[in-house]
Amino acid sequence: MRIDVHFNASATGHPDLHDRVVLVVDVLRASTTIAAALANGARAVVPLEGVDEAIARAKSLERSEVLLAGERKMKPIRGFDLGNSPREFSADVVNGKTIVMTTTNGTAALSGTAGALEVVVGAFANYSAVLAWLRAAARAGKSITVLCAGSSGRFALEDAICAGRFVRGVARRGLDPELGDAAKIAAIVDRRMGGDLPAVLRNSEHGVALIQAGLGEDVTYCAAIDTHAVVPVYRDRQVVPLGDRRER
Amino acid sequence: MRIDVHFNASATGHPDLHDRVVLVVDVLRASTTIAAALANGARAVVPLEGVDEAIARAKSLERSEVLLAGERKMKPIRGFDLGNSPREFSADVVNGKTIVMTTTNGTAALSGTAGALEVVVGAFANYSAVLAWLRAAARAGKSITVLCAGSSGRFALEDAICAGRFVRGVARRGLDPELGDAAKIAAIVDRRMGGDLPAVLRNSEHGVALIQAGLGEDVTYCAAIDTHAVVPVYRDRQVVPLGDRRER
Repeated sequence: MRIDVHFNASATGHPDLHDRVVLVVDVLRASTTIAAALANGARAVVPLEGVDEAIARAKSLERSEVLLAGERKMKPIRGFDLGNSPREFSADVVNGKTIVMTTTNGTAALSGTAGALEVVVGAFANYSAVLAWLRAAARAGKSITVLCAGSSGRFALEDAICAGRFVRGVARRGLDPELGDAAKIAAIVDRRMGGDLPAVLRNSEHGVALIQAGLGEDVTYCAAIDTHAVVPVYRDRQVVPLGDRRER
Repeated sequence: MRIDVHFNASATGHPDLHDRVVLVVDVLRASTTIAAALANGARAVVPLEGVDEAIARAKSLERSEVLLAGERKMKPIRGFDLGNSPREFSADVVNGKTIVMTTTNGTAALSGTAGALEVVVGAFANYSAVLAWLRAAARAGKSITVLCAGSSGRFALEDAICAGRFVRGVARRGLDPELGDAAKIAAIVDRRMGGDLPAVLRNSEHGVALIQAGLGEDVTYCAAIDTHAVVPVYRDRQVVPLGDRRER
């Protein structure tokens, strides 16, 4: 059993995901927003790359049951119901809805997961729930690939730290995965820099940009651990909560 | 003054290099081989992406003055004079010659440096010489971009460690550059993993592959510090030694 990490999923082409479980990480903000939406009762999140594609898909669904969400360069998209701030996806807004979503980096990372055994979406916000799922997969002998969305094809510190925390979490207590180069690095980065997540995220390149855009509260939200006990799984081109979350 | 690092230069598209000095790092093996070739008297190394392009260029030059070098998937290319092993580029072979060279990752990284103020090629083999040059540029206020060639569009541990060592070297003694996310990571990775370079390189993904291909001695060669006191600069599409090396 092995863990590999890709720091720029949208840029590194298509790694071989055959017979692997895949974790997609886009801490700022798509992964966090997806976790918030599903934990707050959204039926599904449909990630699409293009704005026109998202509008067309939304039109194909019952208007009262769909919300259009997304951003371009951190800004909301004209005519959309929601941006990409996890704080917008509260229960009163998203409960029972299907969210059609397009974001700069996270959506592309999900689209690049063809061939994987199963794909889950993780962030600090749903760390423990996703980790438990990953450990079960690892115990069953499945290798894991972590795809960090990065930021416009570049390395993103917050994704690397989050990836490293998942690597360390899987490698703990009885499991001894082989680690690829980038997985080793990610684990070191989390150990060295992951102590004060709110501060590290505020000082990351993407965090600074969000704060400058007036979205500092999003950075704080995304730095919090285990806000939502949800495992978002990407199946049939939509992200749904694993198990029947509503029965909890 | 600022330092940015890109871990997968060949995959991350074209970062803005305007008014920046650029360091291209491909420890295993192109950067090391270029340093060895120039230190051992080669006139120039002409990096080209395609095999046919390399053959055509070699034909345009005086046969007695040119050597064709390169690899595909670590293997020598049929009909070429040399592979990509730095050990092949000894003075008796390369002195006075122009080397037309094509490699899997390093050549592509050099091609992506358009717009930069100046481009140098660095590895552990010529660390101190290149560092002195970079520090002079930094003292003159120039920002630095480090392009790691990586391995087939993936993160390569040995390049990250080498990039981090250059970041740390520039940031020492009186210079206080702003560090991008990946530059911070690279510095941490070098500090944590760079203690025993031969061992780390042997255990890196690319190192393991080279050893399996029977090229373990290359890995040892590339892990040695300051074998060559040469600063290779990339100008007019060829890499030449900075200053008149032969007068030393």
